[in-house]
Amino acid sequence: MKKFLNSVDTVLTESLDGFAAAHSDILALGDEHKFVRRRELKPGKVALISGGGSGHEPLHGGLVGHGMLDAACPGQVFTSPTPDQMLAAVQAVDTGAGCLFIVKNYEGDVMNFDMAAEMSEGVLQVITNDDVAVENSSYTTGRRGVAGTLVVEKIVGAAAEQGMALPELKALGDRVNDATRSMGVALTSCTVPAAGRPTFEIGDNEMEFGVGIHGEPGRRRDALKSADAIAQEVCAAIAGDLGDRAKGPALLFVNGFGGTPSMELYLMYNSARKIFEKSGVTVVRSLVGSYVTSLDMAGCSITLTLLDDEMTALWDAPVLTAALRWGM
Amino acid sequence: MKKFLNSVDTVLTESLDGFAAAHSDILALGDEHKFVRRRELKPGKVALISGGGSGHEPLHGGLVGHGMLDAACPGQVFTSPTPDQMLAAVQAVDTGAGCLFIVKNYEGDVMNFDMAAEMSEGVLQVITNDDVAVENSSYTTGRRGVAGTLVVEKIVGAAAEQGMALPELKALGDRVNDATRSMGVALTSCTVPAAGRPTFEIGDNEMEFGVGIHGEPGRRRDALKSADAIAQEVCAAIAGDLGDRAKGPALLFVNGFGGTPSMELYLMYNSARKIFEKSGVTVVRSLVGSYVTSLDMAGCSITLTLLDDEMTALWDAPVLTAALRWGM
Repeated sequence: MKKFLNSVDTVLTESLDGFAAAHSDILALGDEHKFVRRRELKPGKVALISGGGSGHEPLHGGLVGHGMLDAACPGQVFTSPTPDQMLAAVQAVDTGAGCLFIVKNYEGDVMNFDMAAEMSEGVLQVITNDDVAVENSSYTTGRRGVAGTLVVEKIVGAAAEQGMALPELKALGDRVNDATRSMGVALTSCTVPAAGRPTFEIGDNEMEFGVGIHGEPGRRRDALKSADAIAQEVCAAIAGDLGDRAKGPALLFVNGFGGTPSMELYLMYNSARKIFEKSGVTVVRSLVGSYVTSLDMAGCSITLTLLDDEMTALWDAPVLTAALRWGM
Repeated sequence: MKKFLNSVDTVLTESLDGFAAAHSDILALGDEHKFVRRRELKPGKVALISGGGSGHEPLHGGLVGHGMLDAACPGQVFTSPTPDQMLAAVQAVDTGAGCLFIVKNYEGDVMNFDMAAEMSEGVLQVITNDDVAVENSSYTTGRRGVAGTLVVEKIVGAAAEQGMALPELKALGDRVNDATRSMGVALTSCTVPAAGRPTFEIGDNEMEFGVGIHGEPGRRRDALKSADAIAQEVCAAIAGDLGDRAKGPALLFVNGFGGTPSMELYLMYNSARKIFEKSGVTVVRSLVGSYVTSLDMAGCSITLTLLDDEMTALWDAPVLTAALRWGM
């Protein structure tokens, strides 16, 4: 295992300490590293709280700030945060208007966020499940929540910042999730620090179609394809799943898994954009970068969100977080 | 070689096409992919032009926009751009106030930018050479220009946006370069697409101290060390080179080389910050991310820039590029 670390037991806390020190203008750490919270709360605003296993940075801590999340609870690497983390976050950031949990669909996350929601007052939840690759998976019943979660957090975050009430935010989050599809491919495995070796074996000329963000198996293992062929298959899976809805204005988000440089991500974006635009989708908004990662995995995912005017305006609204910032 | 590509001959142009399409609100491509230019020029402003071999993205194209570069000339991967690229860029973005070239100190880059400067009117140059690792290297006489180049481009770019004249911008750029030191380490090699195999061999438990951003040898090959030990050695090299000046307010920039995820970069930032602060440096500004990369190399560099009030204010000034944006 080749990583920058001092001890596998302290990877997460040291990284969070560095993260909080580097972005102390935007956010602060909760006690015992239970959560990352927005530094300045906005009284009367519904609090958005997300979280999940670590190793997907900048998701979710890097998305805490004005116009996006109020708090994020980091679990150990690829391990759900515990309900007491969510409860501590609720206590820290709920200013009286209630909380919305945004939860990726993994059994541990759903169970623990559910438990925290039941122990709190005025909490609703949005479960994201944008990954079209497989139905049910290593840690999931149904579909996995992956990079599309960022899109939900951005759009719902903007609406919360503008004063939308809790039930409407929940409905909006469900609507964005429903308009969003993703699929990923891996060229290499990730390596969990505590394991010390790759999560899965993969040959020098192989790739995994439909990989999950913890290295879960996808649809199939295959020989390494050209960028265009990969994009063709991934875009077809996304468009096929959307069916007749796969047309009109959309956000195209090409997401790196951590070990793939931006030069390759923009090349994949170029392929995917051409493919979608040939089929009647108009790419009106774009995001390219490593935002929902799988530690050091080489690979990427493609996410398409069908946009209406309200969603587009909310995507464009000001955001100031460690990882996403525009308009302020 | 495991990369997202269609053909090694078209990696660069396809990636640039995707980049320009994703950021068409900020920038545009010149004919024949000769340069990336700011979409809206500001008449009367000195034009800042940089460039160099590709493979270091987002440097330099990702730094084109308001408050930073007016144009960037991308060479082939790890290959200097040609003088006609710089001449075309000058022609496209010089609005009459002259041009400043910001050039990393590599022999090919220096020669080609020199040639273009001699063939133009009203061009001055800043050469960056912030890498303390080695004196002279594979492609360099003197010291290499590395991640500190971004700091020069940001600070000089802000001053140009505010109307500073060409000779003062040149002096400011030299001053920022003189206040900046960097050193990098590699855990793996990069792989140049046209070569198809790693640039250098490195053992499973080895690392390279002082590596260059093209995989050039550094100070020595050693067994993989802890993050703290790596940071200690890199920070000591930087502080030792600055000598008595290594104190007071500073920008700490931890830069990933392309294959290292942000979790590890923040952990390295945490180590480096503690080390510098123990020795009298006060970290007042921070940047953590993969900005000056070496394709898919796993590794990182640490850059320290000693800040005065003018430099700090210019660092904070609004910037709107693909890779760096704040204040607008």
